[in-house]
Formats: sequence, structure tokens, C-alpha cells
Amino acid sequence: MERSKLQKLLAVARGDEPADLLLINGKIVNTLSYEIIEGSVALFNGYIVGVGDYEARAQVDLHGAYLSPALIDGHIHIESSLLAPPEFARTVVPWGTGAVVCDPHEIANVCGTRGIQYMLDASERLPLDVYVMLPSCVPATHMETAGADLTPDDLRPFLSHPRVLGVAEVMNFPGVVLGIDPVLDKVDLAAGRPVDGHAPGVRGKWLNAYSAAGIQTDHESTELEEAREKLRNGIKVFIREGSTARNLEALLPLVTPENCHRFSFVSDDRHADELQAIGHMNATVRKAVKLGLDPVIALAMASTHTAEHYGLHDTGAIAPGRRANLVLFEDLKEFKPLQVWRDGVVAVENGKLIASIEDYSTAGVTDTVRIGALNEQSFAVAATGDKVNIIEVIPDQIVTRRVEAALPQEAGCWIADTARDIAKMVVIERHGRNGNIGRGFVKGLGLTKGALASTVAHDSHNLICAGTNDRDMLCAANALKASGGGWVVVAGGKILAQVALPVAGLMSNDSASSVIAQISRLHQAARQIGCPLDAPFMALSFLALPVIPSLKLTDHGLVDVDKFMEIELGIS
Amino acid sequence: MERSKLQKLLAVARGDEPADLLLINGKIVNTLSYEIIEGSVALFNGYIVGVGDYEARAQVDLHGAYLSPALIDGHIHIESSLLAPPEFARTVVPWGTGAVVCDPHEIANVCGTRGIQYMLDASERLPLDVYVMLPSCVPATHMETAGADLTPDDLRPFLSHPRVLGVAEVMNFPGVVLGIDPVLDKVDLAAGRPVDGHAPGVRGKWLNAYSAAGIQTDHESTELEEAREKLRNGIKVFIREGSTARNLEALLPLVTPENCHRFSFVSDDRHADELQAIGHMNATVRKAVKLGLDPVIALAMASTHTAEHYGLHDTGAIAPGRRANLVLFEDLKEFKPLQVWRDGVVAVENGKLIASIEDYSTAGVTDTVRIGALNEQSFAVAATGDKVNIIEVIPDQIVTRRVEAALPQEAGCWIADTARDIAKMVVIERHGRNGNIGRGFVKGLGLTKGALASTVAHDSHNLICAGTNDRDMLCAANALKASGGGWVVVAGGKILAQVALPVAGLMSNDSASSVIAQISRLHQAARQIGCPLDAPFMALSFLALPVIPSLKLTDHGLVDVDKFMEIELGIS
Repeated sequence: MERSKLQKLLAVARGDEPADLLLINGKIVNTLSYEIIEGSVALFNGYIVGVGDYEARAQVDLHGAYLSPALIDGHIHIESSLLAPPEFARTVVPWGTGAVVCDPHEIANVCGTRGIQYMLDASERLPLDVYVMLPSCVPATHMETAGADLTPDDLRPFLSHPRVLGVAEVMNFPGVVLGIDPVLDKVDLAAGRPVDGHAPGVRGKWLNAYSAAGIQTDHESTELEEAREKLRNGIKVFIREGSTARNLEALLPLVTPENCHRFSFVSDDRHADELQAIGHMNATVRKAVKLGLDPVIALAMASTHTAEHYGLHDTGAIAPGRRANLVLFEDLKEFKPLQVWRDGVVAVENGKLIASIEDYSTAGVTDTVRIGALNEQSFAVAATGDKVNIIEVIPDQIVTRRVEAALPQEAGCWIADTARDIAKMVVIERHGRNGNIGRGFVKGLGLTKGALASTVAHDSHNLICAGTNDRDMLCAANALKASGGGWVVVAGGKILAQVALPVAGLMSNDSASSVIAQISRLHQAARQIGCPLDAPFMALSFLALPVIPSLKLTDHGLVDVDKFMEIELGIS
Repeated sequence: MERSKLQKLLAVARGDEPADLLLINGKIVNTLSYEIIEGSVALFNGYIVGVGDYEARAQVDLHGAYLSPALIDGHIHIESSLLAPPEFARTVVPWGTGAVVCDPHEIANVCGTRGIQYMLDASERLPLDVYVMLPSCVPATHMETAGADLTPDDLRPFLSHPRVLGVAEVMNFPGVVLGIDPVLDKVDLAAGRPVDGHAPGVRGKWLNAYSAAGIQTDHESTELEEAREKLRNGIKVFIREGSTARNLEALLPLVTPENCHRFSFVSDDRHADELQAIGHMNATVRKAVKLGLDPVIALAMASTHTAEHYGLHDTGAIAPGRRANLVLFEDLKEFKPLQVWRDGVVAVENGKLIASIEDYSTAGVTDTVRIGALNEQSFAVAATGDKVNIIEVIPDQIVTRRVEAALPQEAGCWIADTARDIAKMVVIERHGRNGNIGRGFVKGLGLTKGALASTVAHDSHNLICAGTNDRDMLCAANALKASGGGWVVVAGGKILAQVALPVAGLMSNDSASSVIAQISRLHQAARQIGCPLDAPFMALSFLALPVIPSLKLTDHGLVDVDKFMEIELGIS
């Protein structure tokens, strides 16, 4: 804080000058002392002055509602909401979210440092603090082509940005555990700042090694005993409640009053529909309290603990000198926000956003589907060998199975076999770097006709397309090329439905409501072509992720994840 | 950690290479998960590898004893022990202390930056981590002459030292609350690093202002409600158990499992005799547990919480990648240390120090009693007015009372009046800066003859001398000049007893045992000249401290602390 501003704040705090605003008759949730205190909170110049009997130029009666620090999401990929940062803010601020610590890993895989810069710039003037952890794994593996290869030297300049906090989840945990230099270089980049972890299922000696390397958090625990080991090793447990991964119920029994300060809530990935209909961190707090957690501890896990971990000393609690980022809840059961203040200014009134949020130019992060001219031949798979390795989708899981089968042939090429629910699949490098096309087959998408395609395909976000015939696959790929990316369903050479995601091929320019409506139509179209999955594009987006077992397809071709190597499609 | 060292540690952690040492059959106090875990701890190259079933080149059977992180004192003035850093380490390491966060405020008031550098250098090779907070109040007030005036520019270079953590207790709390620029400059010096506080009795709006200025800790609470307000304001409560100020019993009821991580134990000032006979942080932990605190929480308050607060991520807990700074306690009642490890090496075996600790050169911080030639006339107090303002000592307190009395005269000068227990007192500027002598009278020291003198006189540490006659006072002052400082008792023109404190006039070069024996003889001598106080030199040392009410004497003369101004001795 500037000196003169601080001196004015001190004058108000000691009672020599009046405050701007006094919030009276509140039940103040003190997440430092873990108490609820009845009293008045004075605000001045965007800051909390203190709790006490202050003179103020105005006052607001809270009528006995609960005043909490604004909530903080300790780890989120905003891109997964499909919403650009301004629309994301419009969606989460009304739920009482005051800050998110985001890892722009997805957009960085497409746009490199431009993507990181865009996320910083697009979130500059929001009534939401968007803190950024620097993506540590771009590309995620050497078996795929991402839009950039980010080295520590590429990332280091961002460390001087006031909202960049450290290094994001180091997903290459084998690289850390095995002490691989380029991976440890990414950890070192933090130079004493926070380094987040990502160690799904890692326990025992490997976890000891991962911990010893200086990794400080993890949000991937799915089982209580796994989280317990991390807690014991000094890794803070970020309990994830996302749209797909929901770990609260499994992990909550580990939280005790003594150790609760080593836990935070995060969402990791949360989709637009859930963000709009159910809530954000307030929904996680609500669920935790329903599961039996003390509401003050729950709120602390969704604010103070996270702020303290990341060294955000000017927010995350109702205390003198902290920014007046506050949320007023009607009760500590439903956690329905009545009002939200950001830097002492009302951003949400009666649950409605009143802060003005402007869209931000997406120049520099659009036109990211850079693929050459395609034709039906681009999708042809020459038949070599007797059988092929096929990826089998397991419903509601991101892991797959490897199966083998002989396939029908046409003109010396293998083709889809709808009778056995086997579709063709391609991954087309879309970053304009090498034009790679990986080709394979997938079982279990249920397609009876047509094709699905997506430019959201973790983690390199190449164009992934599955279909029953080359004509529809070509149509789907070209549709995404034309729209600058997104999701599409095609049949009979026509687009049945599509969601345009022109921002890096990952995010929409539309409102959350519009995106939700588009997705609903898209899912309907997918069902029309036979796909029975609840979230077909979610399933598709993980079929190119070569860090999740067992068999995946990248622009390099098939990857046997268990062996962590590329393999041939045909089996002789 | 260097890369190659880390890679070796990772290899051991993941089980590919053997550990150096396996500590088996221990009850491991995990201050991160707040549990006691039975198991084995592997060490390698001075670090903790992890808990688990590791192969190791050697093993040690802990026979069911309790393995705890080595203890940390969150705030101490080492000078108050009268021991130079090496001897201080010899005294506290056997009690399981692994680190102290010290404020070299006393020596800095005498030697300025040389004093800070000495404390850093003299603690460089100890089996004890001595972290330093930069003294923020040298001099403490404008009403005295210290050995240096330390500005932020003087202190800033120290921030690059790996053991300098931030800015020490900002004692000038009115300066902070009132927003005085030079005081806020000291707070700003920290530039985001820790800033410790000192706010005795400060509550309500003034506390809100002190908190808003960014002060993060306080160890001065004496009452529970005072500490509660600080806790609520986000100021971490450092519970002090020193040799004079003991706040544990009063404050402990405030600690709950939820909020315990916002508490640490500190000693502030602890004397050699107590450090040797009773213990250090282990004694505080013992007392806390006797008062009902859970022993794991007590140990966390004496280790992990403090390490986390100061960002000491490589120590303070038994977890992979942390330095193997450990203490083995026989039980969790008496907290008697059996063994202490420092960086994986045994420093204490069967309670006995085996680590070799060498003395460190005191060149540059000796010969600090720089006063000109004195004679009996130097002590004469010309009689002006009818009565004089007299400082009255209150037994066992550092506050004084102002009383007025007419005094006997001799040759136009006021003299001591032993019949009414009024001695003469002088404070002689001893830093060679201006030769000031402040003169006054003190009631309540009990002196019937002779004189006492000390170069320990908070906070400027000028030479303070009280006596019944000028001849003995001259003898006492000259004795300290000759010895380079310390404590002395004189009668009949002869030295009865003395403790040489040649290091800045504050610390001894002798062993703790010798210092304790010398003090015992000194106290005996003080009783011989009539002083009935338990700790006469402690009382004397606070009579020059112009930040504690009500009347004090500095080299400037009498200070009315309530009015925070210098006043005349004589009253007309």
C-alpha cells in the first residue's frame, strides 16, 4: 500500500477519522480465530479497518446475516469452464468467489506464453482476483505435439507479474521422482515460491521422493489413505470438487480441527453448467457442511488457508488492513450469497451481479486451428498386419483399455465397424507445426453414423475426431477449422450441432447461458448419431491424453501409456 | 539444495539407494498431521528421507522414545542470557533446541551493524540455526544516546544474508499507529518478509491500526483478552515464557485445536541460570503440557508453527526433504532429551553435548565502554530548586513511580540519603559519542553503602551506576571501564564482586557455569551493601529504559515516560 494511503487507513483505524462504511448487525465469520463474532466491520478506501464501534459516513445493516471473507478457489483451470475470464467472473462472483488461483495449462499448450499473457490481461479488470501459477508441463509429454514448448526461460519473466504466484502442478511426477533435470528445472523456477503438485495415487517411497523435491500441495488424492500420507509428508491437501472428479466425501474424514489449516478446497475443473446452476466454492462449502464439517472451518478452507498458503496476506480474512473482499451469506447451511464486496465496493446485490464486467479482446489467441488442406484420404488407414490395437472407452472414466481386433477393409484400408461399436479416430496436429495426423480406432463411443470432433483434447489440444466414415470426419474437422475450434457433431455430410470455442479452440466468446444451451443441443445431436455417453466430448477430450492409462492416440499415433511409449497400430 | 545432492536424495527416497541411517522403533511426532506414528525414519546426507521401511547403512534403535522435530525459539534476545552465541548454543542444544529466531537488538544498540554482523558470524558454525530479525528500534527513543542510529539503509544489506528473515519487533507501536514516516520506513524495509510486533497492552482501535500496518506477530500479551484481540486481528500470538515475563499460564486457555497453528512459543529473554538448570523450549513445552495442552500441539507450537511462520520450509517437521534436525524425548511429560541430531549428525548423546563448538573471535565488539576520564566531581548534582524528582523502584516490576523529596546537601550539591533509602544514580554515555552524564536519585534499592554499576541498561546500554557516595560510584564506573563492561558491586573504594561482560558490555566470554557462579557471588555482594532485591542488576538495567513508565534516567537526564519527555531534576 502507498504510504499516504496507509497513513489515512491508520487514522481511520485508530478512530481519528471516520470510516467510509460500517457494516452493522453482522455475524462476522473470523477464520483466524475460528469464531463467529457479532459486531460491526468498518471499511475504508477498499480495506477492512477493523471490527468495532467506528464512526462512518454510511452504514449498512446486515440484519444478522453471516459476513465471511470472499471465497478462494485454490486451483482451477478456467479453460475447463469453456468461459473466457470475463464471463467466468460473471458466473462465479455472484457465488461469493473473490479469488481463484488458476493454472492456464490448457491455453498455454495451445498458445504458449501468449496464452498465459492473455489470461493475465483478460482478468486484469475483473471484480475477481485471478492469480496465476505458471504451467510446468507444456508439452505434457514428448509423445505429442503441443502449440509450444515452454522452458523455464520462457516462464521466468512472468514471475515479476504481481498476480503470478509460483509454479503450477508438476504433473510429470515420475520426472520429479526420478530426478530428471528438465523437470527439476521447472521446480527450481519457483525459487522459493509455491510449487503445486499433482500426484494421483502416488504413495509410499515415491511420494517421499516427490515430497522431498519441494512439492507443496496436491489436489489429486482420491482415497483417504493416500491423502493421509501426503498430509503426513507436509504436502497440503487440496480437496477437489470438480465437475468430474469429486473427492470431498472420500477425503473429508481426514480433516480434524488441529490439521484443518493444512487443507483447502479447490475445483480443478468445473463446467459452465455446474458453475451456473449449483455454484462454485460456496457449493463445495455447502456440501462439506452437509457432510458434517464445522462451517467456520469450511469457510476457512475456502479462503484463509488458501490465502496463507500462497502468501496472499492482504486478503482471505476479515481483519484490519486486508482488502474488503467479503461475502454475506444468508445462513451457514445453504451458503447462498446475498451480497459480495470487492475492495469495499458492492459487486453483488441480492445475489445479482451489479459490477460491470467488460469482455476482453481475444486478439492473439484466436485462429488457433492451423491445419492444412484435408481430404478423405487424410483419414485413410492402410491395413498392415492382421489385427489392430484399439482404444476401448470405459464409461465415466478417463482411463481406457487396450483391445485387439481384426477390422473390415476397403481399398486396402481398415475402416470402422459400427456393428462392433468400433469407430475410426484421428488426432490432427492443429498448431501449424508439423501437420501430423495420428490414426487409430476407438471402441465404446456408440456411434452408428456420423462423426464427433473437438479441439479440446488434453493436454496438447490437437483436433481429435471420431467417426464411422471419412466423409463425415472430414466435414467435422473442416467445421472446426472454420470455426476456430470447438465441438461439433456431423452426420450425412452435415453439421448437426456445434459449439464454437474460438478462444484458443478451448473457450467460448458467448455467455454461460448460451454455452450451456449450445452444449445441450450438442449432446442431443451426439445421441442422434448413437453416442449414449452423458458427456461424449469429455470422453473424447481425454482419449488423446498420454499420461492416463492404458492406450491413447496423439498426433504421433498410438501411445501405450503403461509402457510410456508409442506403438504401432497394426499387429502382425 | 544443489541439484546433484537432490538427485541422490531422491534416489534414496524412492528406495533405489540405501539411506545413511534408519532410526527404528521410534514414536514419531508428526507435527504436520498432529499424530504420533510408530515407525522408522530414514536419513541421508543430513536430510530426512521419509518414514518407511528403508534399507540403510546403519540403524539406531530408539527403543520406543519420542522423536520430535528439534525445537525452535520464535523470538529471543540471546544477549539476555549473558552468553556469547557459542556458549548459548552449548547451553540450549542439549535441551533439544535446533533453531532460534533472535533479535540482536541489544548488541545493535551498542555496536550498530557490527553487532548484527558479529551475531551472524559468531553463530555461523554452531549446531544451532541462529536466524536473525533486523532490529527496528536503534535507538529506542530520541531521549537517549545509543551506540548507533540504524536506518533502513544501514539494515537493508543484511536482508541478503541467508539467515536474516525480516524485521524484528517494532517496539515503537505509537509510531506505527500514528503513521510516523521513519517508523513505517522500518516496516517497509521488510518488503514482504516477516515483521514482528511488540504491542504490550495494545487493544481496540489502536490494535486495529497496528495490525493494519502489517505487523504479523506479537509476544507481549500478558492477558488472555488482549491476546484474543490480536488473534482475531490476524496477529500470530507468540506465547512468551522468559525468565522475567511468563505468560503461558495466562494465555494458554486461548489455544484451541483449530487456532493452535496461529500460536508459537518464545522466550524473549531467558537467563543463563534458567537455561542451564531448567531448560529452554523443552521447559516451556513441559509446562504447557502440565497445564493441559496436548503434547503434539505443544511440540508443534515449539517447532512447526514457528518454522512455517518464518518460511523455514526445510526444517521444523519430520517429513521428506527437511533437514534432519531432531530431538529424542524419553517421554512427553518431562521432555528430557536423550539425543539431538543436527543435519543428521548426533549433537547430543544421552543428554550430553558431543558436537564440538568453538568460541568465536569477539574482535570488533569489545572495548565498548568508551567514556572519558571521570572523577568524583563527575557525579556531583548541583542543588537547584527545593525538591528533586526521584525514581522509586517497585520490587519485581520494571515500571517505576515518580516521587518528590527534599534531599540533604553537601557543598551545594544534593547527596544520597541512605536513611530514607535514596541513592544517587547516574547514566554515563559509554559509546564515545558525546560524554553525556544524566544524574538523578533512586529510591528503593536498599543501599546502605557502596555502589552498583552495570553496562547492561536497556535499551541504549549506557553505563548506569547507583550508589550512596561518589567515591564508590567512581570506583564502580572505572571498574566497568577497565573490564570492558559488565556488572560490579563496590564498597569502601573496593570491588566486592564483578561479572565481566566484555562482549559489547552485554555478554560474557565465560562458560554458563562460570557466569552463573559469578552472578551468585555478585548477588551476595549486593546484599552485603544492603540491596534486598532478588535480581538487583535486572532492576538496575530497566531504570534507564524510557519506554516503560513512569520515571527513568537516561544519559540525557530524567525522562517522564508518561509525558514521553525529558524533565528537570530539581523542583522549585
